[in-house]
Amino acid sequence: MLNQDTIVALATPSGSGAIGIIRVSGKDALSICNLLFKSKKGLPLLQQKSHTLQLGHIVDGERILDEVLISVFKGNKSYTGEPTVEISCHGSAFIQKEIIQLLMQKGCRAANAGEFTLRAFLNGKMDLSQAEAVADLIASDNAASHQLAMQQMRGGFTNELAVLRKELLDFASLIELELDFAEEDVEFANKEEFQSLVTKIQKVLSRLIDSFAVGNVLKNGIPVAIIGEPNVGKSTLLNALLNEDRAIVSDIAGTTRDTIEDEISIGGIGFRFIDTAGIRETQDQIEGLGIKKTFEKIEQAQVVIQLLNSPDLFDEGQALIQERINNIKLELDKLAAQFPERPFILLANKVDELTEQQQALLKSALPKIQFISAKQKIGIEELQAQLLNFVDTGALRNNDAIVTNSRHYSALLLALEEINKVQEGLNMGLSSDLLAIDIRQALFHFGEITGQVTNDELLGNIFANFCIGK
Amino acid sequence: MLNQDTIVALATPSGSGAIGIIRVSGKDALSICNLLFKSKKGLPLLQQKSHTLQLGHIVDGERILDEVLISVFKGNKSYTGEPTVEISCHGSAFIQKEIIQLLMQKGCRAANAGEFTLRAFLNGKMDLSQAEAVADLIASDNAASHQLAMQQMRGGFTNELAVLRKELLDFASLIELELDFAEEDVEFANKEEFQSLVTKIQKVLSRLIDSFAVGNVLKNGIPVAIIGEPNVGKSTLLNALLNEDRAIVSDIAGTTRDTIEDEISIGGIGFRFIDTAGIRETQDQIEGLGIKKTFEKIEQAQVVIQLLNSPDLFDEGQALIQERINNIKLELDKLAAQFPERPFILLANKVDELTEQQQALLKSALPKIQFISAKQKIGIEELQAQLLNFVDTGALRNNDAIVTNSRHYSALLLALEEINKVQEGLNMGLSSDLLAIDIRQALFHFGEITGQVTNDELLGNIFANFCIGK
Repeated sequence: MLNQDTIVALATPSGSGAIGIIRVSGKDALSICNLLFKSKKGLPLLQQKSHTLQLGHIVDGERILDEVLISVFKGNKSYTGEPTVEISCHGSAFIQKEIIQLLMQKGCRAANAGEFTLRAFLNGKMDLSQAEAVADLIASDNAASHQLAMQQMRGGFTNELAVLRKELLDFASLIELELDFAEEDVEFANKEEFQSLVTKIQKVLSRLIDSFAVGNVLKNGIPVAIIGEPNVGKSTLLNALLNEDRAIVSDIAGTTRDTIEDEISIGGIGFRFIDTAGIRETQDQIEGLGIKKTFEKIEQAQVVIQLLNSPDLFDEGQALIQERINNIKLELDKLAAQFPERPFILLANKVDELTEQQQALLKSALPKIQFISAKQKIGIEELQAQLLNFVDTGALRNNDAIVTNSRHYSALLLALEEINKVQEGLNMGLSSDLLAIDIRQALFHFGEITGQVTNDELLGNIFANFCIGK
Repeated sequence: MLNQDTIVALATPSGSGAIGIIRVSGKDALSICNLLFKSKKGLPLLQQKSHTLQLGHIVDGERILDEVLISVFKGNKSYTGEPTVEISCHGSAFIQKEIIQLLMQKGCRAANAGEFTLRAFLNGKMDLSQAEAVADLIASDNAASHQLAMQQMRGGFTNELAVLRKELLDFASLIELELDFAEEDVEFANKEEFQSLVTKIQKVLSRLIDSFAVGNVLKNGIPVAIIGEPNVGKSTLLNALLNEDRAIVSDIAGTTRDTIEDEISIGGIGFRFIDTAGIRETQDQIEGLGIKKTFEKIEQAQVVIQLLNSPDLFDEGQALIQERINNIKLELDKLAAQFPERPFILLANKVDELTEQQQALLKSALPKIQFISAKQKIGIEELQAQLLNFVDTGALRNNDAIVTNSRHYSALLLALEEINKVQEGLNMGLSSDLLAIDIRQALFHFGEITGQVTNDELLGNIFANFCIGK
C-alpha cells in the first residue's frame, strides 16, 4: 500500500499571507530539495542535522525564485515517518506555484488529500483514530470540538481499547490452542478470568457507545430551531447571540432566506441555529409546505425556540389580543403534543416596546414566556445560560473518553454485539471452536477503529476528507 | 523608534489549511513561549540551540491546546534581527486564535501590519528598499513582477546607489573640511575627481529614472483597453487569453459589467485588460457618457484592441455592409487622430463563421485587420506574441536594475535635480560652502531610498501596506 514516491503540497492555506509552507515527504525529499536549494552557509541539505533550519535560496539554474528557510527532518523523525523537508517561502501564490512545479520537475509528485497523514498512519506514527482526529482538530471551531479532537489525537479511548484488545487476543489464542488439543480435553483458558474480561469489555463498550450521543452533538454543534413569524427578529436574535453581524438583518419581512444555519460558540460549545420559515403564516393550511418544513427542522433540533414579536400582539383592539394569545397557546400545545420530549423556549422579543401592563398580561396568559430584546441585548445572557443548561458537559469537564466519530460508533456497536454473543456462548457452555469465532469477530471490529484491520477503500474514504498538504 | 515589546501575529493566511505559523519576535520571545510550551524532550526553549526545531505541546495549565513544532532563532540570527520563535500549529482558526490570545496573556502584543519587517529594517537586517521589496515579492503574481521584486530584495540598484552615496559623502566631508580652513585657501577635494563622480552619478540616476517607465508597467501590468460593441466576444477573448474561465461569458448582449479589469500573465508579463463599454452604440451622441468613458480608458491604456463581431457585418444587404465597414474606418480614424501614439490592434472575431470571400472583402477594406476566433482559439497565440512585442523586456532579460517603486522614482528625480545643481555650481565655480549645501541635499534624497534618512510618518506609510505577520 505504501508507495515510495516523494510527495509535495502547499501545507498552508492559499491566499495572501506573509509565509507559505511547502511540504515534501518521501525517501528522496532531501536529495530532491537539495537540487534547487542553495544554502547561505553552503552546506548541502543531506549533510544537515535533523530538526535544523537552513536559510538559503530556491534556485532554478541561474534564476533565484525565493529566499527561504528550510526545515530538515531526517530518517523517520518526522510527522510522516519519512524524510521530510518543509520550505518556508514568501506568501505569494505565484512563488509557491513556481516552487512546487520545480519540485515536480525534479521528481516529486503532487500529494493527494490527507496523504501526509495517511503515510504517518501507514508508517506507524499514529493509529487510524488518531489520524482521523487530525482532520477533526483542523476543523474544530470551538472549545468543545477542539477538546474532543485533541483527546482523540492523544490516544483517547483507543488506548483503553488497545489494552482490552490485547487481553482478548490472548484469550482467543489460548482458546484456539485448546482446539489443537481437543481430544485431550485440556483447558488453557481460565473461564472465570475470561468471564470477568468479557464483563469488563461489555461495560467499556457500553459506556463508549453511550458517550456518542453527547460526543456527536458536541462535535457537530447542538441544533436549535428558531420558529416564528417573518420579521419577528430571528436574524437580530442570532446576531445578539453571535455578538456580531453575521446574518443580514433587515426590517423588511421575510428577508431571511428560507432556512439559514449558523453555528456559533456559546461558552465554548457549538450551537447550530436553524432558522425556519414562520410557522403561523400557514396555520390555515396545516398540511402546507411551510409547516411541514418547520416540523422537519424541529425534528432535527435538540432545542426549540419559539420567538414572538410581542408588540405586534398589541397593535389592534382588546378582543383581537386575546384571540392572538389563544392562537399562540393552541400552537404551543400542538407543538408540545407533536414533540413531547423536546425542550421549548418561548421568547417574547422587543420587550423594550412593551408596557409593564402588557408584559403582565402576557406573563399571566403564557406563564412560560421569557422577555428579551434582541436589539437592546436584554435577556440574551440568560438565554445563553439556558441553552448551555441543555447540554450535558459533564463528560467534557471530567475529560472522560467520548466517541465523536460515527465510524467508531458503528464499529463499537458491532464489537459489543459480538461480545454479547461471546457472553451468551459462555452462558450456554458453547464449545471453544464456536466461541473462538465470535471472539475473532469482536477483535475484528476493535481493529477497525484503530486501523489494525483496514483496506484501501476505507482509507480512501477517510483521507479523502482531509485537506491537501495534511 | 524601536520599541522593545515582544510581538505576535499569524504569519500564514487565515482560512483552513494543514498548517498555520504563529510568529513571535522580541527580546522576550523565547521566555514567553517557554511559559506555554512543553517540549517532548523536556528541554526548555532557552536551552535549545538557534535554528533548531522542537516538537511539543502548547499548554495552558492542564489544558493541551495543540501539538506543535517550534522553530527557535536566538540572538539576532533571525528575520527581524531579534530573538524569534515560530510556532507551526494545526491549521484551525480556533486553535490559532487561542494560542495567540494565550501569548498575549503572557506578555506579547499583537503585531502591527509589517512590523516584523519594520524591525528587520530598524535592526539593520535590510535597507528600506529591500523591506519594500518584501511586500512586492508577496504581491508578485507573474514572472516579471517577481523578478523585479526579487532583484530589489537582493539589493538591486541600491547597492550601486550606496557606493555612489559613500563616494559623494567623502567628497562632501572634504569640501566641508575646506570650510574650516577657509582662510588658508587649501583644497582637500580634487575637483577633477569630483567632477567625474558627479558625471557618473548623473548617468546612473538618469538611467534609473528612465527605467521606471518600464519598471512601473512591469510591476503593475501593461494596461490594454478592449473596445467593441456589446456581445462582440470580449469576455470570450479574455478567457481565451487567460486560458481559463475567469470572466462570466454569456450570449446575452451586455452581460459584461460596465468595466471589468482582469490581470493575466502572458509569457511571464502581467497584462491588465480593461474591458470598456462598447464605443459604437453611442456613436450618434459622440459626447455621450459611454464614449467619454471609453476615451478615458484608452487614455490609461498602453495598447488598444478594437474587437469586431465580424459575422454581424454581413447579416444584412450588400449596401449596409459597405456602410458598416465605412463606419468602422471612420471610427478608427477618429481614434487614431485622438491617440496618435497609441498602438491599435484591429481584431475580427468569430472568423470561423466567415466565408473566405467575406474575409477577403474585410481584408481589402481594412488592411490592418487580424482574424481570430476567441471561442475556437484561432489566432490567440499570435495575438499573445503581438502583445508581448509591445513590452520592452530587454532590461528584464539583461537583469538590469529597474526602478519599480514610485517613492524611489520621486527620490531619484529629486536627487538628480540636486546633483544637477551641484554640476551647475561646479561650472560656475561656486564657493565650497554653497556647493556643500547642494551635495547634502542630494545625499538626503539618496538616503531616503535606502532608509538612512527616514521618519516615523514615512515608515508608517510604507509598512501600513504590508500584511500582518510579515
